[in-house]
Amino acid sequence: MPRISATKQAILAAALELGALHGISGTTMDEVAERAGVAKGSVYYNFSSKDQLFGELITSGVSTLAETLRGARLSASGFASIEAMVTQMLALIADNRALAKLMAAEIFRTDRAWQESMAALRREALSEIEAALEPLTPAGTPEGSRRLMAGGIFGATLMGGLEWLLFSPGTPVAEVAAAIVFTFSGKLDAGSPASA
Amino acid sequence: MPRISATKQAILAAALELGALHGISGTTMDEVAERAGVAKGSVYYNFSSKDQLFGELITSGVSTLAETLRGARLSASGFASIEAMVTQMLALIADNRALAKLMAAEIFRTDRAWQESMAALRREALSEIEAALEPLTPAGTPEGSRRLMAGGIFGATLMGGLEWLLFSPGTPVAEVAAAIVFTFSGKLDAGSPASA
Repeated sequence: MPRISATKQAILAAALELGALHGISGTTMDEVAERAGVAKGSVYYNFSSKDQLFGELITSGVSTLAETLRGARLSASGFASIEAMVTQMLALIADNRALAKLMAAEIFRTDRAWQESMAALRREALSEIEAALEPLTPAGTPEGSRRLMAGGIFGATLMGGLEWLLFSPGTPVAEVAAAIVFTFSGKLDAGSPASA
Repeated sequence: MPRISATKQAILAAALELGALHGISGTTMDEVAERAGVAKGSVYYNFSSKDQLFGELITSGVSTLAETLRGARLSASGFASIEAMVTQMLALIADNRALAKLMAAEIFRTDRAWQESMAALRREALSEIEAALEPLTPAGTPEGSRRLMAGGIFGATLMGGLEWLLFSPGTPVAEVAAAIVFTFSGKLDAGSPASA
């Protein structure tokens, strides 16, 4: 992996912080330079444009997410692989909350310069969930349905995770994962929940 | 309900369209006026600022969502109320896709003028899901866990719904609802999925 200079790192961190707070359109390169404590020329030396800067942030975030989901999926089998994916994704969100907020806001935008690379990475992340779902869904399940289920599990984890960080940040990750996984466990539909 | 003038409606529709495409920060009042085919003065006659305009769009959208969820919850009982909420929310998303995209991007922003009214309405919407979950979760379940579960079900439906509209818009709503509900049905954790 190529070494990232301290300046580049400071610029990326500043952009992330401002983008999560004010949105990408509401953030200027001037503000990024000021927050990073570097000259504006230095920002442009490292990133040719605001699009390139945020594109790099977002695509590297989604790429890390896909890798994390893949690792979680392979660490277990059956329903436990879904549990592992939810837990690992929540831990990733907790460690990168500004990035998670930024990604939640960007994930359905269709007018960005980095739209195609993000869509491809997003597909890659969802494919990992789809792969875990394959042995858990009936043989005749159409691929489209599995894709929707994967989107649902992803959405549940992302929204549950952001809800957690905004409103009950003191709750341990295991407890949050247990709540999210509970909804997928079938206990909601068990008829006699008190026995669960 | 007060009657909304045709001009006001045209302004709201134009703002929604532009906001879903370029984000709120990326949309100007000039562009809204142009798209609505009205004079800029007319936009400011109806809305004192861009914040007021988008605030009205977003809060009325979340308010409609909360009402829809409440109606769905009361239309059924037990796990069927969860199914009804998922289905009705998907239908609402399909009928208001620009608004759904805008809300998905806004729902975790914490720097908006309408932040507090939106947070209150968002709470109201999630409370409906929490109320449906209450008889379905074990007696000792902490309120915080139920809140996370509600956030998860909401997120699954929102993300599954947007995934649907972007990538398989031809799929009937019932099929999409079935896929999302399947993940909450416990069949994923049934051990022998082929028999499901």
